Amino acid sequence: MGRIVMKFGGTSVADLDRIRAVSKLVAAEVAAGHEVAVVVSAMSGETNRLVSLVDALDKDMDPTGEKSGGAIADEYDSIVSSGEQVTSGLLAIALRRRGIPARSWLGWQIPLKTDMAHSKARIGEIESSAIGPSMAQGTVAVVAGFQGINKDDRISTLGRGGSDTSAVAIAVALKADRCDIYTDVDGIYTTDPRIVPDARRLNRIAFEEMLELASLGAKVLQVRSVELAMNYNLPIRVLTSMADEGQRNPGTLVCHEDLTMEERVVSGVAYSRDEAQITLLKLSDKPGMVAKVCKAMSDAGIIVDMIVQGISRSDNSANLTFTVGERDLEMALAALDAAKQDIGFAGVKFDRDVTKVSVVGIGMRSHTGVAQTMFEALAAKGINISVIATSEIKISVLIDSEYTELAVRALHSAFDLHTTPAPRVSAP
Amino acid sequence: MGRIVMKFGGTSVADLDRIRAVSKLVAAEVAAGHEVAVVVSAMSGETNRLVSLVDALDKDMDPTGEKSGGAIADEYDSIVSSGEQVTSGLLAIALRRRGIPARSWLGWQIPLKTDMAHSKARIGEIESSAIGPSMAQGTVAVVAGFQGINKDDRISTLGRGGSDTSAVAIAVALKADRCDIYTDVDGIYTTDPRIVPDARRLNRIAFEEMLELASLGAKVLQVRSVELAMNYNLPIRVLTSMADEGQRNPGTLVCHEDLTMEERVVSGVAYSRDEAQITLLKLSDKPGMVAKVCKAMSDAGIIVDMIVQGISRSDNSANLTFTVGERDLEMALAALDAAKQDIGFAGVKFDRDVTKVSVVGIGMRSHTGVAQTMFEALAAKGINISVIATSEIKISVLIDSEYTELAVRALHSAFDLHTTPAPRVSAP
Repeated sequence: MGRIVMKFGGTSVADLDRIRAVSKLVAAEVAAGHEVAVVVSAMSGETNRLVSLVDALDKDMDPTGEKSGGAIADEYDSIVSSGEQVTSGLLAIALRRRGIPARSWLGWQIPLKTDMAHSKARIGEIESSAIGPSMAQGTVAVVAGFQGINKDDRISTLGRGGSDTSAVAIAVALKADRCDIYTDVDGIYTTDPRIVPDARRLNRIAFEEMLELASLGAKVLQVRSVELAMNYNLPIRVLTSMADEGQRNPGTLVCHEDLTMEERVVSGVAYSRDEAQITLLKLSDKPGMVAKVCKAMSDAGIIVDMIVQGISRSDNSANLTFTVGERDLEMALAALDAAKQDIGFAGVKFDRDVTKVSVVGIGMRSHTGVAQTMFEALAAKGINISVIATSEIKISVLIDSEYTELAVRALHSAFDLHTTPAPRVSAP
Repeated sequence: MGRIVMKFGGTSVADLDRIRAVSKLVAAEVAAGHEVAVVVSAMSGETNRLVSLVDALDKDMDPTGEKSGGAIADEYDSIVSSGEQVTSGLLAIALRRRGIPARSWLGWQIPLKTDMAHSKARIGEIESSAIGPSMAQGTVAVVAGFQGINKDDRISTLGRGGSDTSAVAIAVALKADRCDIYTDVDGIYTTDPRIVPDARRLNRIAFEEMLELASLGAKVLQVRSVELAMNYNLPIRVLTSMADEGQRNPGTLVCHEDLTMEERVVSGVAYSRDEAQITLLKLSDKPGMVAKVCKAMSDAGIIVDMIVQGISRSDNSANLTFTVGERDLEMALAALDAAKQDIGFAGVKFDRDVTKVSVVGIGMRSHTGVAQTMFEALAAKGINISVIATSEIKISVLIDSEYTELAVRALHSAFDLHTTPAPRVSAP
């Protein structure tokens, strides 16, 4: 008994059979006595179809609005949001056919208010004074994900994957007990099962760990949805909508670390191939030169990730190595070229064929030796590390892309991630 | 210079090429100095696609909500209205690509308020305080047709063909000078050109005549749109969006009769095959029996059209013959059967193979002899008339369907409709 939010992505509502299957999952939660809000994405392929209509009219359009200056992003949002509008109505009908009172809610009907950034809007306030009482009367709220309304009364969208964030934000606004994200995988794994066949599904994972994993390219949950859930301490359950009842496992609960039950230092190994390494050679040895490089990048809208400064043994000059997203490489090189005089360096080297491999775990906070285990495991396979970056709960290394799978398997094994850990002794 | 509303139906916005072509037509009106609102339908086929999704989920659904008690009509409206939402956004983008400021307006954004009858809503109030100033600033308003919002903040739709009514209602609200309805025919014809090859396009037609023609099955304009235009004396121009510039003729202006310039008694010949004839045999000769029959039909939601009472020569008993829409025949027969004792009649005959053929013209008000010409023309071809009905500007006859084309051609010729009439002497 309580209030829950269920979220279904595009593949979970891909066709009418899948929508009927979703209505069955919702019916089970209603039968269990819950007040339910369901957040839906567009039917799989529908968003792409709509985007391609826009693209065909406006070849220069970029969906983020960054390059086109947002000149058509308002209409893009109005067009593309229609996909979720259709799914929400269809699921409401499917629920009524099962005898369950239900109605669709569009972003402007709730209203779910956003800022003015079309096609990548951020959620502001969510009004619960209409949807809340409707749910309390036993009507399932079927919410069109991904969309909101801005102060000009125009439809805004949250950007690709925004339905996760919609779902969590609505769960927060509704003071829900839990947000269940149904997807095409059955939970969060210790690493990518395509690389490590004995990767293990985690029963629970802490918000902070999930945030690191999501940032590192584990694409199950959108980063912003995890941030939001963490800020409001709202548990998220990730589970599959694909398996039949009985065969369905409970997925992974993303929750406050106090609720994570496993005694384990490292929870998962993540990797990201979308990296490029840039090295500035022979930087002038003046104070503030790293700051100048970072400013040049940030002025160009480029995020600098890992960064390390080295001293050349031969001539005692300094080199600076850092990474950017691979898609930003060209822009970064152009920005550096433009700022070459100001920064002062002899040359630039770059490398696209690099991968960032990371081990993540809140247990690192209180355990030493993780870095040592990691570096030894990689060294044992002959894998060179070019850059190292650490946070409180994460160690990342940059390696040659060729070694990605080898490194991930070695680390998964070195931290015993394929074995089920002993339960942590819970607090009294 | 002035304010105009342009409306484009589904075939006129069937694909991106057609939408680009529409943007060119709009651009020409903007270049002529007009403030322009454009009302668009869904891309051809899109509404059917959306309806079929709903139908597949709910096989008992009838789009009018009459049989299903409107139980899912709210969601039907939310789903189906997305078609116009997409077109309005696409046309706004196409206009911006031509350098013309434009934005889409959805029913709830205007707002265009309707009553609560989902899927066949009637327009109430249209707010012009947002859209009007936007147009006055030179921004083309691209309005999603067919949709509105009811007092519960739910999306409502006006029923099939409702975009015509949207366009006229918006033109009225915006105090537009004219509403141009672009369609796949190039105007209103004296009769169906598929039956009479030398049918002539009318330059002008009076509201009252158009209303009769629209009611009689000439499907170019929705009846309600003509009623509305007549009530507010708003001229409608019907013209094609298909022809290239230069080849396009000015279409037909539907306007107040004072503005119709042609001196002609009959303006057009219309026909409707969607008719069924019912005859009640040997009705009891009590007062009020016709009223009883009409009540039985109206209680069943069936509209009785033509009606005639005859006396049988043999036994002096009365027969009653009337027509209903062909799709209502089964329901009508069932209702009559149920009321047989109460009404009192010996038996029922019916005939589906009947056609109503009508001549329409405001000139009939001041001219006699139209009926005589009509009956003589039909008699000369050996066509029997089973029922006759007249109004101030219309004479309708019911004939055997086999004779439809023959009758239409005979009447078109008898009233000289293929020749261009002399202009009426205009009032001083």
